[in-house]
Amino acid sequence: MTRKLSIVGFDADDTLWHNERVFKLSQDRFAALLADETPPENLMARLEAAERRNLGHYGYGVKGFTLSMIETAIEVTDGRASATTIQALIDIGREMLEHPIELLEGAREAVESVSRSHRVLLITKGDLLDQERKLAQSGLGDLFHGVEVVSEKTPTVYETVFQRHGSTGEHALMVGNSLKSDVLPVIETGGFGVYLPHALTWALERADPPESSHRFYQIEQLSALGEVLSRIEGDA
Amino acid sequence: MTRKLSIVGFDADDTLWHNERVFKLSQDRFAALLADETPPENLMARLEAAERRNLGHYGYGVKGFTLSMIETAIEVTDGRASATTIQALIDIGREMLEHPIELLEGAREAVESVSRSHRVLLITKGDLLDQERKLAQSGLGDLFHGVEVVSEKTPTVYETVFQRHGSTGEHALMVGNSLKSDVLPVIETGGFGVYLPHALTWALERADPPESSHRFYQIEQLSALGEVLSRIEGDA
Repeated sequence: MTRKLSIVGFDADDTLWHNERVFKLSQDRFAALLADETPPENLMARLEAAERRNLGHYGYGVKGFTLSMIETAIEVTDGRASATTIQALIDIGREMLEHPIELLEGAREAVESVSRSHRVLLITKGDLLDQERKLAQSGLGDLFHGVEVVSEKTPTVYETVFQRHGSTGEHALMVGNSLKSDVLPVIETGGFGVYLPHALTWALERADPPESSHRFYQIEQLSALGEVLSRIEGDA
Repeated sequence: MTRKLSIVGFDADDTLWHNERVFKLSQDRFAALLADETPPENLMARLEAAERRNLGHYGYGVKGFTLSMIETAIEVTDGRASATTIQALIDIGREMLEHPIELLEGAREAVESVSRSHRVLLITKGDLLDQERKLAQSGLGDLFHGVEVVSEKTPTVYETVFQRHGSTGEHALMVGNSLKSDVLPVIETGGFGVYLPHALTWALERADPPESSHRFYQIEQLSALGEVLSRIEGDA
């Protein structure tokens, strides 16, 4: 029997391992550092605005986040931020780049199980070196047939990735915690999108679920992925 | 006739387009900003030390360079660097990310010509988004059969890239301006390395040429690449 799906793609951050909570912790430290200057809500709003503004220059990842924190600190202090504060922000960024990886529940089992029957890819965005470091530390590296660190997750990027691995959107499924980056663009290529919500979602990743689609699934934990695959491939 | 080489890889920065001179200009602006604090030679030495120290965290590229400049500014002023100076460094970094690409002489012709007979790859390190931006702006994107942005150029990384494109080191040639990153590791995989020296070479990329190797070539301009290929493939 020819399988309907040839590729199953996994997002990395907050799909296989915790990530957003590392950003959240850093933001809390950032807010504490500038508590005398501005209330946390305002600081977070300014930081988010800086991240949006800088995304086209910096792309995703910790280095750009660090630069946006520094810029925001200077902005909210009207240029009075001390070098000590700035150095503290650099240190926060560097600690993020050293933060140990904690796998989400069922991550290893899910990837292992799917990799026995399908070509499994890790498809992630962020700083190249940092994503590689996290994958190495996760211990999941050997399970994947391919790893793709991309600068943006658009339908075109997914098509290129699927093609590179000898397939097309119609035979691909992607699972991840971002409707915007993991689910909607893959459905747009003709593929299947499996949404695995995470308690924390970065503002820039928020999107509405698709209106109605037989190619959209939502699961509450990775252990449910096998059932989705069976349903799609019609042997359930 | 089966060709001896199936893959010809090109480095990007300072092989196909100018790059190091953009860093040099930024360093000059950095030195001017801190001229009252420390002589340029000392500043550059401290910056280089910061870049070396941070490489394992930040990897290559403009964002890490910007963070290293900021850290160095704080260091040489013993924590007195003003937010205005820091913001100026962020601005320098951002301008680097917007700097227009200028092709090196013969770049388009060389890639075009080789692409008619070989699988041509662009193999580059740096910030993912920035390298993609430069490639898009270079107008050379369509000429390459594959583009690989890697976090480090080691023999293992080259082997993975060559394999991914259906080949091995023995059937691969890489041309670039860095002995350390473009030439030596490819020769180590059993492939051919073509060194195209550039007037400016970053301290962290310096290395000695190989002792003696029939798989090492040096050319003074890209227009000489065709002759090297002919010599290797034995039809000259």
